[in-house]
Amino acid sequence: MKKSRASASESRSLRSIGEDALIALLTSGLTAGAETLVGVGDDCAVLGKPGQRAPYTLFKTDCIVENVHYLADADPAKVGWKAMARAVSDIGAMGGWPIAALATVILHPDTSLAFARGIYRGFQKAGRTYGFGIVGGETSRAPQSGCNMISVSMLGKVEPGRCVLRSTAQADDAVLVTGRLGGSICGRHLTFQPRLEQARWLVEHFKPSAMMDVSDGVARDLPRLAKASGLACSIDRDAIPRNRGCSIDDALTDGEDYELLVTIHPARVECLLEGWRAQFPRLPLTRIGEIRAKAASSDITFGDGGWDHFD
Amino acid sequence: MKKSRASASESRSLRSIGEDALIALLTSGLTAGAETLVGVGDDCAVLGKPGQRAPYTLFKTDCIVENVHYLADADPAKVGWKAMARAVSDIGAMGGWPIAALATVILHPDTSLAFARGIYRGFQKAGRTYGFGIVGGETSRAPQSGCNMISVSMLGKVEPGRCVLRSTAQADDAVLVTGRLGGSICGRHLTFQPRLEQARWLVEHFKPSAMMDVSDGVARDLPRLAKASGLACSIDRDAIPRNRGCSIDDALTDGEDYELLVTIHPARVECLLEGWRAQFPRLPLTRIGEIRAKAASSDITFGDGGWDHFD
Repeated sequence: MKKSRASASESRSLRSIGEDALIALLTSGLTAGAETLVGVGDDCAVLGKPGQRAPYTLFKTDCIVENVHYLADADPAKVGWKAMARAVSDIGAMGGWPIAALATVILHPDTSLAFARGIYRGFQKAGRTYGFGIVGGETSRAPQSGCNMISVSMLGKVEPGRCVLRSTAQADDAVLVTGRLGGSICGRHLTFQPRLEQARWLVEHFKPSAMMDVSDGVARDLPRLAKASGLACSIDRDAIPRNRGCSIDDALTDGEDYELLVTIHPARVECLLEGWRAQFPRLPLTRIGEIRAKAASSDITFGDGGWDHFD
Repeated sequence: MKKSRASASESRSLRSIGEDALIALLTSGLTAGAETLVGVGDDCAVLGKPGQRAPYTLFKTDCIVENVHYLADADPAKVGWKAMARAVSDIGAMGGWPIAALATVILHPDTSLAFARGIYRGFQKAGRTYGFGIVGGETSRAPQSGCNMISVSMLGKVEPGRCVLRSTAQADDAVLVTGRLGGSICGRHLTFQPRLEQARWLVEHFKPSAMMDVSDGVARDLPRLAKASGLACSIDRDAIPRNRGCSIDDALTDGEDYELLVTIHPARVECLLEGWRAQFPRLPLTRIGEIRAKAASSDITFGDGGWDHFD
């Protein structure tokens, strides 16, 4: 009886399983390897040996798919930029800087050469802007029924003392976010600038207790950070910095913001904000919530006031 | 007039362009980055600084697509193994060893959970067999019309003195190949063992002048090695070691052998073969041709005897 239940469960399709649950199911029990400091679960894997003084290696892969992450009639140079910039954003969110990228570009055979070249122009622009090399990869034709996609692998470096994880937030830490949120779909998702410079400044001057980039919206990503740290969190809805035309809910859930989500001891917030304003006068940094001790009940709950609570 | 010709050329589809030509068109002019010793064009990118004593980093990405590299009803654990083993083979062909891998798994929503888990079991087996960690990646559902694919990124290491490129063969070098060729499609393409141990032994004891793995058949891959070295080559057709049931042409062109193609000074061949037989008594190493100075005519020519000549 037990066996037949198990096989029924194994035969169900991926359609019926949520994304986070699927990844947890598939990656649990993977061997991390001798030089793995951080494996599955953070913005990047961190490779190195405990106590080493040389920079750690950051390792990330990220994939964009036509009609999911961009439309077929998008400017191909922007598509190429986006593919690279997403990975740069993940490297930055660990406190590091990018070194080299490989791109796997799978294109439908009817794609024009001009479109393919445009994608590589976008890669090149991102590499020059953020100082990494495009050192190889693969260009394949998709099967006739397939769609276009780009998978990027990126290597970065980070000094051991400046590497920031998402799993090391502390109870009572303040939560801050860079920039403004929401409405990325109107175009910014193809042209955004990863907060690499800002993240490097943060880890040097006000090292956060935890950090990640906001790719799926603060309402999904902050609870992930809190959960990775074994903690809960609250969001001050009224404090969320919004882009023009966005409701609070848009700003919380739209995704593809690629801003930095930062936690820091509450006593350091004033000083951080003062330093930030002097360094980045045109980019807001906003306190939007706090990390909290985990309540006995571990479900996500929504407050009826201006705060959302995620246990 | 010129302009309209250029745009006509840009608007042609990828269908009309050969694979090597397409890659050359798209990757020419890419910025390699400050720490890139070898970029586009070899089995792996090589990252490091000239003169460094610490191991170089090897960086590779490789992708397999359903109904191109495996059939939809294949054993998923073998599919996962193959995805990893192909990248291990490339790391080995540079003289290195694998450290860590990331896997991007894109699956059609109707794929069963059991199939997805099987793929990860194959990853895990490869990681344990060759001593690298599976440190993350991505699992996405393909759009309804898309097909399953797996992209693997792998990091390896190699001592600077043991790193072997494909572009450093010398005129008059002997060409050797490990194992037997052809017929991989009958099943071996899903279960092959990359020649990692053999490659490490070679770079330690009889460092080849150039090396690569045979993925598209010796008849395509040896001319690539020769071309990368600015040289030509000849293949002794009758010497080609064949798998059972394979003609010479099968062995030369079938592909997916994942054997090592090695060049070495002709004076060292006898000594190498003797050492090899003592070390790997069950795996043949066979002399199959030579590297030649480039003739004035630079086309590929076929001899009418037992030798194929590639200028």
